[in-house]
Amino acid sequence: MKSFLFPKINPSSFTWVRPEGGVISKVHEWIEPLTDYEKSKDAEVVVVGVPLSRSSISASGASEFPDAFRRAWKGFTTYNLDHDIDLADISAIDVGDVPLHVTDIRKCHDNIIEASAALHTSFLNAKVCAIGGDHSITAMMVKGLHQAKPNERIGILQFDTHFDLRDLTDNGPSNGTPMRNLIESGVVKGSDMYNIGLHGFFNTKDLKQYADEKGVNYITLSNARKKGIEETVNQCLDELSTKVDTIYLTVDMDCLDIAHAPGVPASTPGGMTTAELLDGVLAAGCHPKVKAMDIVCLDPLKDYQVQPTVKLGTHVFLTFVSGVMLR
Amino acid sequence: MKSFLFPKINPSSFTWVRPEGGVISKVHEWIEPLTDYEKSKDAEVVVVGVPLSRSSISASGASEFPDAFRRAWKGFTTYNLDHDIDLADISAIDVGDVPLHVTDIRKCHDNIIEASAALHTSFLNAKVCAIGGDHSITAMMVKGLHQAKPNERIGILQFDTHFDLRDLTDNGPSNGTPMRNLIESGVVKGSDMYNIGLHGFFNTKDLKQYADEKGVNYITLSNARKKGIEETVNQCLDELSTKVDTIYLTVDMDCLDIAHAPGVPASTPGGMTTAELLDGVLAAGCHPKVKAMDIVCLDPLKDYQVQPTVKLGTHVFLTFVSGVMLR
Amino acid sequence: MKSFLFPKINPSSFTWVRPEGGVISKVHEWIEPLTDYEKSKDAEVVVVGVPLSRSSISASGASEFPDAFRRAWKGFTTYNLDHDIDLADISAIDVGDVPLHVTDIRKCHDNIIEASAALHTSFLNAKVCAIGGDHSITAMMVKGLHQAKPNERIGILQFDTHFDLRDLTDNGPSNGTPMRNLIESGVVKGSDMYNIGLHGFFNTKDLKQYADEKGVNYITLSNARKKGIEETVNQCLDELSTKVDTIYLTVDMDCLDIAHAPGVPASTPGGMTTAELLDGVLAAGCHPKVKAMDIVCLDPLKDYQVQPTVKLGTHVFLTFVSGVMLR
Amino acid sequence: MKSFLFPKINPSSFTWVRPEGGVISKVHEWIEPLTDYEKSKDAEVVVVGVPLSRSSISASGASEFPDAFRRAWKGFTTYNLDHDIDLADISAIDVGDVPLHVTDIRKCHDNIIEASAALHTSFLNAKVCAIGGDHSITAMMVKGLHQAKPNERIGILQFDTHFDLRDLTDNGPSNGTPMRNLIESGVVKGSDMYNIGLHGFFNTKDLKQYADEKGVNYITLSNARKKGIEETVNQCLDELSTKVDTIYLTVDMDCLDIAHAPGVPASTPGGMTTAELLDGVLAAGCHPKVKAMDIVCLDPLKDYQVQPTVKLGTHVFLTFVSGVMLR
Amino acid sequence: MKSFLFPKINPSSFTWVRPEGGVISKVHEWIEPLTDYEKSKDAEVVVVGVPLSRSSISASGASEFPDAFRRAWKGFTTYNLDHDIDLADISAIDVGDVPLHVTDIRKCHDNIIEASAALHTSFLNAKVCAIGGDHSITAMMVKGLHQAKPNERIGILQFDTHFDLRDLTDNGPSNGTPMRNLIESGVVKGSDMYNIGLHGFFNTKDLKQYADEKGVNYITLSNARKKGIEETVNQCLDELSTKVDTIYLTVDMDCLDIAHAPGVPASTPGGMTTAELLDGVLAAGCHPKVKAMDIVCLDPLKDYQVQPTVKLGTHVFLTFVSGVMLR
Amino acid sequence: MKSFLFPKINPSSFTWVRPEGGVISKVHEWIEPLTDYEKSKDAEVVVVGVPLSRSSISASGASEFPDAFRRAWKGFTTYNLDHDIDLADISAIDVGDVPLHVTDIRKCHDNIIEASAALHTSFLNAKVCAIGGDHSITAMMVKGLHQAKPNERIGILQFDTHFDLRDLTDNGPSNGTPMRNLIESGVVKGSDMYNIGLHGFFNTKDLKQYADEKGVNYITLSNARKKGIEETVNQCLDELSTKVDTIYLTVDMDCLDIAHAPGVPASTPGGMTTAELLDGVLAAGCHPKVKAMDIVCLDPLKDYQVQPTVKLGTHVFLTFVSGVMLR
Repeated sequence: MKSFLFPKINPSSFTWVRPEGGVISKVHEWIEPLTDYEKSKDAEVVVVGVPLSRSSISASGASEFPDAFRRAWKGFTTYNLDHDIDLADISAIDVGDVPLHVTDIRKCHDNIIEASAALHTSFLNAKVCAIGGDHSITAMMVKGLHQAKPNERIGILQFDTHFDLRDLTDNGPSNGTPMRNLIESGVVKGSDMYNIGLHGFFNTKDLKQYADEKGVNYITLSNARKKGIEETVNQCLDELSTKVDTIYLTVDMDCLDIAHAPGVPASTPGGMTTAELLDGVLAAGCHPKVKAMDIVCLDPLKDYQVQPTVKLGTHVFLTFVSGVMLR
Repeated sequence: MKSFLFPKINPSSFTWVRPEGGVISKVHEWIEPLTDYEKSKDAEVVVVGVPLSRSSISASGASEFPDAFRRAWKGFTTYNLDHDIDLADISAIDVGDVPLHVTDIRKCHDNIIEASAALHTSFLNAKVCAIGGDHSITAMMVKGLHQAKPNERIGILQFDTHFDLRDLTDNGPSNGTPMRNLIESGVVKGSDMYNIGLHGFFNTKDLKQYADEKGVNYITLSNARKKGIEETVNQCLDELSTKVDTIYLTVDMDCLDIAHAPGVPASTPGGMTTAELLDGVLAAGCHPKVKAMDIVCLDPLKDYQVQPTVKLGTHVFLTFVSGVMLR
Repeated sequence: MKSFLFPKINPSSFTWVRPEGGVISKVHEWIEPLTDYEKSKDAEVVVVGVPLSRSSISASGASEFPDAFRRAWKGFTTYNLDHDIDLADISAIDVGDVPLHVTDIRKCHDNIIEASAALHTSFLNAKVCAIGGDHSITAMMVKGLHQAKPNERIGILQFDTHFDLRDLTDNGPSNGTPMRNLIESGVVKGSDMYNIGLHGFFNTKDLKQYADEKGVNYITLSNARKKGIEETVNQCLDELSTKVDTIYLTVDMDCLDIAHAPGVPASTPGGMTTAELLDGVLAAGCHPKVKAMDIVCLDPLKDYQVQPTVKLGTHVFLTFVSGVMLR
Repeated sequence: MKSFLFPKINPSSFTWVRPEGGVISKVHEWIEPLTDYEKSKDAEVVVVGVPLSRSSISASGASEFPDAFRRAWKGFTTYNLDHDIDLADISAIDVGDVPLHVTDIRKCHDNIIEASAALHTSFLNAKVCAIGGDHSITAMMVKGLHQAKPNERIGILQFDTHFDLRDLTDNGPSNGTPMRNLIESGVVKGSDMYNIGLHGFFNTKDLKQYADEKGVNYITLSNARKKGIEETVNQCLDELSTKVDTIYLTVDMDCLDIAHAPGVPASTPGGMTTAELLDGVLAAGCHPKVKAMDIVCLDPLKDYQVQPTVKLGTHVFLTFVSGVMLR
Repeated sequence: MKSFLFPKINPSSFTWVRPEGGVISKVHEWIEPLTDYEKSKDAEVVVVGVPLSRSSISASGASEFPDAFRRAWKGFTTYNLDHDIDLADISAIDVGDVPLHVTDIRKCHDNIIEASAALHTSFLNAKVCAIGGDHSITAMMVKGLHQAKPNERIGILQFDTHFDLRDLTDNGPSNGTPMRNLIESGVVKGSDMYNIGLHGFFNTKDLKQYADEKGVNYITLSNARKKGIEETVNQCLDELSTKVDTIYLTVDMDCLDIAHAPGVPASTPGGMTTAELLDGVLAAGCHPKVKAMDIVCLDPLKDYQVQPTVKLGTHVFLTFVSGVMLR
Repeated sequence: MKSFLFPKINPSSFTWVRPEGGVISKVHEWIEPLTDYEKSKDAEVVVVGVPLSRSSISASGASEFPDAFRRAWKGFTTYNLDHDIDLADISAIDVGDVPLHVTDIRKCHDNIIEASAALHTSFLNAKVCAIGGDHSITAMMVKGLHQAKPNERIGILQFDTHFDLRDLTDNGPSNGTPMRNLIESGVVKGSDMYNIGLHGFFNTKDLKQYADEKGVNYITLSNARKKGIEETVNQCLDELSTKVDTIYLTVDMDCLDIAHAPGVPASTPGGMTTAELLDGVLAAGCHPKVKAMDIVCLDPLKDYQVQPTVKLGTHVFLTFVSGVMLR
């Protein structure tokens, strides 16, 4: 990892204690904070926190998710009983949070791009997993990936209730704009984007028209259900993989039904069930071209006391890594 | 609209500002408060608030739903992405709330009957959508419809966990009685009522016996699931439409599973999922004989912070209107 | 009932008032508190509260469930509309709570064993339904059953997200250990245990290895869904019934998805839906060899205001009794 | 007690078990449900629940307070440590709740009047303590007292943030009207009313003008604080006792600061502290002419989890009874 | 008002309906939205919403307060019973919210400065009351005042638990910096700042040293209590008025004890009581040199259900205006 | 520190990162986890977590307080503005949590005694501050102190709503018994105990009689208020210091009014205000004979979202240490 990164990425503020006897059973024992680049440079999973939500259109506490996510680790084992695999068999590191600025959002976004580029340059074997934060970070993480690998064509698989194709002219790179940001900046083609989960009354007509103009692919939740979520994901990835070199998975937690995700203020009635999202994420994790992912728009301050949404967000990450192991 | 109505119906207390440039994208920009009857008399959708819940057996804040419903509009677009239709293409007005009395419930009920009659007389093209309030209002809305159109035979499609066939002798027209009220007053025949959603341990045996005596049709949730909710609704409506001129749809939100509808105190374990209810409501909205509907028993004071139930109640209304457009 | 039991079992602290006219319609009118053993000795359903949760690994208020369960009765009718049966047609008694000690958990466990043995000796026709409390009570209830009927081979059907096979050496008979406790004490063979509902990242690998060594049968939730919950349960019970004399059903409410069971702190994303659990419990209730059951790990202090989880726990019990009537 | 009362007053739905050994230490062991009038006719304290809140202007769950109040008893001892007295030394009974009608509020009010009259006729030594319910019940309780003792001039001491002098013409006897109701019906003179606690921006000017016209006495919270709450109360009672035969104390819990009484939706910033209210109530309880009291407008459905407001409402009652013992 | 302001300040999104008969009794009937500058230019009170909290160090929903504040108006009368004055006797307008940008915080701050300057230029008789938002807005409101009246020396009276003197170098003009911002920009001298309310462990030592260097005046809460809040305020204002032309009052709601202000995440144990703050604000309102004020850092998303903090924030404003009338 | 302690006391699970540049400004930067006894043996403040609440009579989550307490540190500076002192000027260490057993409460209590003895033996200059946990731990901490210093006579200053003098015969050393436990075991004389804060209806009469028999000193909250809390504390300590060598301060957070301490289920209406408790604790901290203290019965699981009670509990600790510095 380039040395310039070190002052940028804060080492995780959570202690990592090597488990007694070296036997790993819980997630917080498995994921090590980065302390020695040389030792960790072959890590297969890299976690980076991106606690930015002041770029969110509505007041959001999504900035609190990286911390809540790490605190939730001790409630999960590394052993995946469904597939009889142990996540502890692959190496994972936590590089901490991207440093952010309180009042200069542009600088925050620049730091995210720089961090993403550095991570993709420094950890060549890794799936880089960004823990948001709001959806504005996706454009920055993908731009950083593009900087690191300028010759690779990048495609996106998006689980979302929204297009996230709003115009940047009015309010800049907010959480409503990441996909348009990538199209307009030429980093990803509209036709290399696949959105699964649109439904109901949560997108204006002009965004649909923009999507059509740019060739953005979208499968409504209703249609995805008819075909099966897993099969839908696989078909999208198959199409994508004929076109692109690298696939970026972005999971906007607002794709979930609000009854299943109380800690996502933008989630809606009629969204995905937990089971559907986990099936979709597993399928995505299994695809060899998926090299990076993020989980965004989860606001722990609005979650219920027993933290169903924080736990679900954590489960999404573990499910993705399970997919990686099943490749 | 008859002039006597004007002192009765309060103009909605929510501002309506014509969207800039005249382009409608959100629900609150689409539904106009009634200000000029002549201009609005051909409206296809008429919303009326019925904030009455002091007639509820248990303490209820369902009186707060009309306001919460209107405040929720700005969180929904008029564009229905699933069916590529725009609700803004049909005209909709909000006539405000039926005026109610604090301590004279009978007067409240009389006002509701009168308002319903006036609306059905004045807006001949409209689907009248009553936003409750508790379930006692359904009997009054249907009685008003009957007053307005005395020669039309009225049938009812009811989504509910309960029969709502309690005896009125003991406690008058409470929220447990609307269907019996209509049968006993001769306004609707038992055999013209179709109840979808009964299940579990939430009705006493004598109500079932009364239902059988009066020929009330009911399809338990379990049986509806086996056949498919949409097909069940369609079959009920087909049967009904051979018998009646006009169908009234009543959605008691307590038909939902309590995990999906925390803001409905009477909802129960084992009820409908959100997806099932929305499918059923869409099917009902599509039927040409459905001319009026209501949404009742949603108590925003018990909803969670991000308001999943208020949002779901609003989605039910928008889904119904989508069905109307798809006719 | 043996006299030594009387000082042990507290009469329920809830009033039972014989309904006027003798017509039973609500659950609290049906289940009588035990006052006269001779009159009640043929009861078909016996409810016993086991308000112990200080044996729980995490801080738990599951000790509050027996009271909350009884208070919830008045919200349920005895009439099961789905199957047109009336629970009031079989006799049910509530023997109150097992007396417990504040600081001597071993004494608590001994009391539970003794109470279970006494109940199984005294009420020969009864299905004994223990309302926990945490999962540690299951080992005690089964040991009591074994004491009462030492010649009967006992099998267990378990709905659970966890194996509950933790080692007792470190921390004694906590809520993580009941199944291992029974295996190690020789009361139940590992191969006579059937666990339905395992999934995700909630069991360490060594527990899976222990389960395999001991021949514990487990069907993951994912596999149970593929086959159908009801069919899965029936197949387990069929296998069990070829081997054992008596089947004990234990429902750890943490088998549910956390979105459906907010009042179960250990519930997880990706668990059972309400409908799945109720289907499974009904099937278990129908089997003639199921003679006892428990419901554990439901913490009313963490439930939401409208008490979805307490109501669901109560529904599980009523569904089980419905199965008993359908045998 | 006159026989006509028996069908009206429901026996309390809470069990009363004579404490073992006859030693009373908790409040629920002290207050006996009425079962035998002859045995209880000399009771010094009579508790009656008045679970009416459908007469409240805003949606209210104050109807749930009588039950919550009784459930809270077990959290309080009868021993008053501050004054070294034991409430168990005087006799107290609970006559249950006044029967109410679901949809006929007038009938509810008539029942309350009748119950109050019967209680004041039947229990000649008692302080009758009405547990509301909303403030509309005060007018009815006082009217009943007047019916029972038509020759006694009645005065009122009121702790309140509001005058409760609204016009009855528009909306009938709601919770905003009890004092005017009593003035207009000639039951109590305005000049025999003393209101302590007014402050801030919670009364319209016309109500103040009406109060002045009718000679209603009021001491603002600010002035009461300057003089001292206890001294203020004593001075009011001294004045009153020169004029009237009987004093009725009404405690509208909305007199409290909203930070101290979250379960009172109408409480306000700037209201009384807990300590001030308890001091005032004790002083009132000590006065020999105070023969009846009520506690109103406490909505347990809005209280926080640990029930600070329900506990405070219960403490108000116990403090009043302490005053009675200190007379 | 200068025309350039019109595109900047949004008219309030809340309807204003002239009360029937012209009699004003509630706050929402009194404060008119600005529609005609000429008619309103002599308004004595001007309300402006400043819904900016993305400049807050911690995730904050203080941006939601202007809306919550306006919705709370209908719960307050204009009649101040404590002082027998009616706020309706002075004219008040609501100019709506300052337009803000989603991702450019500097632009937000510039807009606030510009709006403040325009308001102070356009409404020469008015007390301008800014409803935040976080505390960063205070620096901008004061800079705007300075722009409008460059020849007036400005002093500040601050109720706060914090100095708000953090260094701007690191993170720009966040909510931790407004006082330093004003000192460093030369707009207000340190010695013209008076802070009341500091206590406990909520300021680092270096901030105290900076305050001392710059001559900032501060009276700890403990010392203010000893002298009396009102007297403390009066003494500060007396000192200030010998030095400056205009005094700006800033009320950081975090000066309150966290038990009294649950909706202020930064409030602390040991802070002011409600009564103390209201006394202090009234005294400030009475001083003739106080020409502008703000209320900041109140986050309605964290308030409890009955909204004690939102109501308290509203009461602060009404108390200030009462002081203005009592001048 | 004796080596046997090392396997007993877990090092704190929270990371300690030496602040950059060595400048300490926040509490979490000041208190170091114990890593090297020799280096830390002169520490003036020793923090030990005692996460035991399964010995609580009612279900309690007080076991979660040590973790919540440590997480709260970063919200407090070390600089005490009221007294212009910096806590960072004295050395403080965190030795982690006493290891506890899940199902053997006696063993838990033995471990606490052993840990306390070891700490008092090993850190001769330290004030040992135990962070509970429930009140049963106080007896154990004091017994350990007695073991370590058998020749010192120990006195206790207790802030509490309760005597905590329940009989141990029935239910063992629960949270209702610590003072009696110490009297009966001969460790502390009744007459060397001073209880401040008793009030209301929260102690049975027999406990008062026991207290009187044993000569326990108690000043009711009402009497303490009359004299002043600080003066009351000083008088108690003066009396105590003539009799004993060492004073142990125990702060049962249930001494607070429930409106100020929602996260203490046993707190009551009419208890201490925050300001009163902090004044009392400061006075206690200042006394040279106070060598150890604890904070108990604070249940973070019941606290509100912004954690007023956890923050207050933390403030109590910091206030105590401030007192120590002011000696």
